[in-house]
Amino acid sequence: MQVFDRSEYEGRLKRTKERMREAGIETLFLTDPANMNYLSGYDGWSFYVHQGLIVSLDHDQPVWVGREMDKNGAKATVWIDHGNLHSYDDDHVQSPVGKHPMDFVARVIEGMGRGDTNVGVEMDAYYYTAKSHQRLQEKLPEATFSDATLLVNWVRVVKSDREIELIEEATQLSEAAMEAGIDAMGPGVPESTVAAEIYQTLVGGIEGMGGDYPAIVPLMPSGEHTGTPHLTWSDEPFRNGDPVIVELAGCRHRYHSPLARTAVVGGVPNEMERVAEVVVEGLNAALDTAAPGVTCEEVERAWRETIAKHGIEKEDRIGYSMGLGYPPDWGEHTASLRPGDDTVLEENMTFHMIPGIWTDELGVEISESFRVTENGAERFSAFPQKVFSV
Amino acid sequence: MQVFDRSEYEGRLKRTKERMREAGIETLFLTDPANMNYLSGYDGWSFYVHQGLIVSLDHDQPVWVGREMDKNGAKATVWIDHGNLHSYDDDHVQSPVGKHPMDFVARVIEGMGRGDTNVGVEMDAYYYTAKSHQRLQEKLPEATFSDATLLVNWVRVVKSDREIELIEEATQLSEAAMEAGIDAMGPGVPESTVAAEIYQTLVGGIEGMGGDYPAIVPLMPSGEHTGTPHLTWSDEPFRNGDPVIVELAGCRHRYHSPLARTAVVGGVPNEMERVAEVVVEGLNAALDTAAPGVTCEEVERAWRETIAKHGIEKEDRIGYSMGLGYPPDWGEHTASLRPGDDTVLEENMTFHMIPGIWTDELGVEISESFRVTENGAERFSAFPQKVFSV
Repeated sequence: MQVFDRSEYEGRLKRTKERMREAGIETLFLTDPANMNYLSGYDGWSFYVHQGLIVSLDHDQPVWVGREMDKNGAKATVWIDHGNLHSYDDDHVQSPVGKHPMDFVARVIEGMGRGDTNVGVEMDAYYYTAKSHQRLQEKLPEATFSDATLLVNWVRVVKSDREIELIEEATQLSEAAMEAGIDAMGPGVPESTVAAEIYQTLVGGIEGMGGDYPAIVPLMPSGEHTGTPHLTWSDEPFRNGDPVIVELAGCRHRYHSPLARTAVVGGVPNEMERVAEVVVEGLNAALDTAAPGVTCEEVERAWRETIAKHGIEKEDRIGYSMGLGYPPDWGEHTASLRPGDDTVLEENMTFHMIPGIWTDELGVEISESFRVTENGAERFSAFPQKVFSV
Repeated sequence: MQVFDRSEYEGRLKRTKERMREAGIETLFLTDPANMNYLSGYDGWSFYVHQGLIVSLDHDQPVWVGREMDKNGAKATVWIDHGNLHSYDDDHVQSPVGKHPMDFVARVIEGMGRGDTNVGVEMDAYYYTAKSHQRLQEKLPEATFSDATLLVNWVRVVKSDREIELIEEATQLSEAAMEAGIDAMGPGVPESTVAAEIYQTLVGGIEGMGGDYPAIVPLMPSGEHTGTPHLTWSDEPFRNGDPVIVELAGCRHRYHSPLARTAVVGGVPNEMERVAEVVVEGLNAALDTAAPGVTCEEVERAWRETIAKHGIEKEDRIGYSMGLGYPPDWGEHTASLRPGDDTVLEENMTFHMIPGIWTDELGVEISESFRVTENGAERFSAFPQKVFSV
């Protein structure tokens, strides 16, 4: 059930170890589920309990640590030898008697002979709590600790051909789901009905291919709520004249292809068409700029200078590196398309560019996921770049 | 758009402050999205960036802190005055220049005149990272810190009548989705197709009522993977003879009603029927035991003693307090139905009891969500307690 060849995992591990050496980290403890998956293949909805992956410069394979109940799931998904799976008993789960899974993790690290090394931890990663860090420090008194936040995320930033293929598959799901959502919308239709159609397609998939759950639920703020981007659906009906912004992502083996479009119930006002033209012009100017050797901030600048010609002044983060992800986010938290980000684009980096223009009366958001090729940016999706009348 | 009357939120706040006083906590900083929602009404998929709620013994209302982009979502969902919403600029989001949202939180706490108090933080809550804690400590040098993990979770454990209503509504969604999933299953049907039908119903809802996204995706390990409870669906087809365990929850305004059932593709083997009878007998014995004044461990014991009569010896956590939740979990992390948990049941506590029996060849899981009433446990769902042939 491994999604990638063993050699691909081994290459990832090698690049991770290079970064560890550069950072003076001898042992790395990861809790970000995407980083765990990236290096081990582990996949499961088990990140609601403490778990992690240990990478040691002295060991050929990463070591998985999780709940006993999840060890079979690990066996079914990882490429590493099953002797490298260590699980803690259920009395560590939300324990009233003070047992903590990090006590167990510390014992595993000691058992690997790494208790006195420099241990890198993801200080600001999802699921690495303040308590986890406190306990790990207490139980590994001979270790020193370094902040390894984003270390593996930066290894993830350039995709392999197989990863690109998965994002391409995810794109087919994104497009089908966007179409299903737009088709379902109309005056009097509850938001939840549209969300259900989107889910049905995202998960049910298309001929020959099903979809995974996306790391973020489909978002579709509408009416007076288009300015509240992270509000989820209600069961209120759409009304004539409502603008709707749909943001969603198909997902294949945890790889995403985000896509956002704007629609209006009952016809698109002229003013909105005009704003949409500016958004599309700016979006494509930014896409035309992206190429190997160009920096992230230069891509944003192309957007900003284009819309400035139309009298619109704004400085924003208009995109971010994306790919492998688990709830709560499909973004990789590394490169951002924004002023001040001088990350240099390389081939097979993948981004979600999601610019928008907001006036007091209306907002238009049109996004593209793209990869950097030697010839410049290549959109994953061919979904029409316009505001839809529904 | 508030889900509860203002008086209900005020009552929750009052009970929270009582616990704060008992614990010597003057200022409480919460990041668990369920706790934020419980006290403020705030609802949105924004927990992928840092945010939180501040409760001060000296202030009448909680104070919300989040990203500027999410302030409108807060205005749309909270009961508190909008002057109590404080938002940070986007240059704090995954900042390459070292800005951290907790720097901003510290300034808000200082601005409230609480910089030199005892600050309770949820050391082991989702989304309170090691870095968050480190930064908050650095930026509030005059404060002392206490661990307030689960403080509000324990306030949540007894539900109001309105909360019970929402769980009852969620139950209708759970039952409809379980039925849709079971109806869709069959030999040759891809797992993803069944997951899609379940989602369609969970979200699209039933006549007159839509559903929210559940805090955990529908889980449906099947075939050789029924022993891997947290593996999610693939697009492999179900095969004749495959057992399938479906665990899902309808969700209304973030309140859940979890439900699990076992099915077999193409007919239930006799041996499995016999195991199912034992599971049902044990489940109902435990339900019959639950009542105000009884402890959690006594409920588990009734299960254990019942299955022991059939020669099965196992000691497990068979359930947990549930209700309001966000990804990654609908459990409340407070009372558990397991040996050693002497929490005394009270009226309107709500649990998901999910016992199972596993042999080398097969496993059966049948669950019930229930509330404690003065007359004992009351199941939320009336879904048949049996193994389904699909």
